[in-house]
Amino acid sequence: MKSFNPKEGVPGFLAAGIAAGIKKNGGRDLGLLLSVKPCVAAGVFTKNRVKAAPVLVCKKRLQKGIAQAVLVNSGNANACTGKDGLNAALLTCKEAAHGLGIPEHLVLPCSTGVIGVPLPAASIKKALPQLIKSASQTGIADFAEAIMTTDTFPKVVTRSTVINGDLIKVCGIAKGSGMIMPRMATMLAFIFTNAAIKKDLLTGLLKETTEETFNRISVDGETSTNDTVLLLANGIGRRPIQRKSSAEYKKFALVLQEIMRELALLIVRDGEGATKLISIRVLHAKSVREARSAAFRVANSPLFKTACFGGDYNWGRIMAALGNSGAVFKTEKVEITINNLLAVKNGQEVAKNRQRLKNAFKNKQLEISINLQNGRQNCEVLTCDLSYDYVKINAAYTT
Amino acid sequence: MKSFNPKEGVPGFLAAGIAAGIKKNGGRDLGLLLSVKPCVAAGVFTKNRVKAAPVLVCKKRLQKGIAQAVLVNSGNANACTGKDGLNAALLTCKEAAHGLGIPEHLVLPCSTGVIGVPLPAASIKKALPQLIKSASQTGIADFAEAIMTTDTFPKVVTRSTVINGDLIKVCGIAKGSGMIMPRMATMLAFIFTNAAIKKDLLTGLLKETTEETFNRISVDGETSTNDTVLLLANGIGRRPIQRKSSAEYKKFALVLQEIMRELALLIVRDGEGATKLISIRVLHAKSVREARSAAFRVANSPLFKTACFGGDYNWGRIMAALGNSGAVFKTEKVEITINNLLAVKNGQEVAKNRQRLKNAFKNKQLEISINLQNGRQNCEVLTCDLSYDYVKINAAYTT
Repeated sequence: MKSFNPKEGVPGFLAAGIAAGIKKNGGRDLGLLLSVKPCVAAGVFTKNRVKAAPVLVCKKRLQKGIAQAVLVNSGNANACTGKDGLNAALLTCKEAAHGLGIPEHLVLPCSTGVIGVPLPAASIKKALPQLIKSASQTGIADFAEAIMTTDTFPKVVTRSTVINGDLIKVCGIAKGSGMIMPRMATMLAFIFTNAAIKKDLLTGLLKETTEETFNRISVDGETSTNDTVLLLANGIGRRPIQRKSSAEYKKFALVLQEIMRELALLIVRDGEGATKLISIRVLHAKSVREARSAAFRVANSPLFKTACFGGDYNWGRIMAALGNSGAVFKTEKVEITINNLLAVKNGQEVAKNRQRLKNAFKNKQLEISINLQNGRQNCEVLTCDLSYDYVKINAAYTT
Repeated sequence: MKSFNPKEGVPGFLAAGIAAGIKKNGGRDLGLLLSVKPCVAAGVFTKNRVKAAPVLVCKKRLQKGIAQAVLVNSGNANACTGKDGLNAALLTCKEAAHGLGIPEHLVLPCSTGVIGVPLPAASIKKALPQLIKSASQTGIADFAEAIMTTDTFPKVVTRSTVINGDLIKVCGIAKGSGMIMPRMATMLAFIFTNAAIKKDLLTGLLKETTEETFNRISVDGETSTNDTVLLLANGIGRRPIQRKSSAEYKKFALVLQEIMRELALLIVRDGEGATKLISIRVLHAKSVREARSAAFRVANSPLFKTACFGGDYNWGRIMAALGNSGAVFKTEKVEITINNLLAVKNGQEVAKNRQRLKNAFKNKQLEISINLQNGRQNCEVLTCDLSYDYVKINAAYTT
């Protein structure tokens, strides 16, 4: 399993990203991903009750499990925009389909940006011919840039492997920096491959892998109205993956897992204002739900996150957050290690390690491992710290 | 119902607050509240699974519903300190009881400050004679100062009324600024009165009133390991309140409600780094649980709170937070008013009010009213914004 240069592209996929005038700063804000033939496609979406218009359209169109193009804009979420928002999403897809010469229902819309502002459909419509014209196998970098909002770098991960004698390439592109605590999805991620795989296998695989990757990160505990992960396989690899028990399926699943895990990591690394990457591992919880809840409670604790930012070794905040998580445990049995140093034993500080832990806590990478000693279930969550810059970025987002 | 000058005191109660060397800055950090006779007493405590030693002691001692003194320290939470912490709480209470000449089990300990550091029992023991000597009816202000941590001002609320012909005075003192999202309690609050009231009535009343006051605020969504509210009535008012249906009970309940509501408000107003006071009112939710969950989800949303700090009118973040709250509603039915201006109707922006709302959002006080139009239950929660100073205060709390 190797990564490849995104410029080399994935067989049968074209990409583009241009500036359509949606972002105030004039940056790239409209992206197109196109397959030369219809793909087997799957998606996972936000669990937020308030769903953006493009999420509603994608969900409906993916019921048949086929798609050929994705039209994405940044700078506008097209959420809380009512019927007009829905019509704008449908209209821009229709225009794109006409320009591409493919059926309308095979175009999936995605949006990200500020909530509640009408989508400038006219600007998008006007930019479509140029967007379509510029689509090519080498356009992945432009596409990745066009979907960014507060992201400070584009997020592209590639892997190739040989399956059934074919060279199978998989490329994943994501955006996300704030409003990140995906539930069943993340902000936006697009994964595309020339692999051939049955629809049901693809759908199941995307769900399972999402649960273990994008659904295990949090920047700020906020779940977006627009979270979407789309997976498209155009089947140019000739011999299809047919069974879940096959070696080919396992190989493909592994590639997908690597790509999605890496994208999730990149999102946390680029968390709004983040200066540290933090993993929270909860071990030996009573249930999966409790392990998850404990890990996320620590990951989303503003007191823990600000202490991480300050490099202030204040382990009591981990204990306080655990105690509020709903997980069942005995305080006097809790063990915590930080960057492999034992910090808490029997629920109390290991004083002899204090100085070394104070130093370790200033590291750019923190690995917090929490043993509840009350069961057999584990969960790992990735997060970042809470800094002045998070406040700065979000105190004036729309202005 | 009138307020009185705390210097006038409450009949039969003495208070004191001195510096015992627990706080690094040399400020007052040890407080004593003493009644001249045993009081009917009730307490509500943190629901955090990790409970500080003094919380465990208080809970046990209050089972009989009698107490005569409260010994409080700031600068150290005595939480996650194991058996030594428990012994330190018991020992300091014992020493205080000896000095005061009252039974040991009538002294209630409370602590607040950093978690996981051994309580300096020797310093407290050494300071006790001076503390006891300085206790007087005029010592309320010193006591209020001695329980502060990151608080920027002491929090004292007083009310007097006539019940059964007696002048009944009630005084409430609280501390709290960060790690504030009480569940069944708050940080520390002490309420004492010369009223005479039956134990069961007092206990029930405290629980009910806590639910509607301290349990309706949040600074940062964090529930402390030390949250405690104590209510002491020494019965110097001669004719006791006997029945819940009596006019006297209702009068007393009203006084208590006013005091606790005002203390809760003061805590939010003094929220760590807070620059704005924000009320979130959720109306017409399907259940009390959903109303509460929706209001707290908005109140605890870092994106909403930073937008409030920046005075950036970004109403979509309210919608996104609501959608993540677990409350059931239809997006297209949501109505939101901000400082009495209609901001959202049918789940979409009321564009004609935008400019006025942009201006209103810069106010120091924000009243957000959210109508879910899906039932009959309401809930109001008080919170504050998330500023640079919250990060600053908490990035270096222990250093």
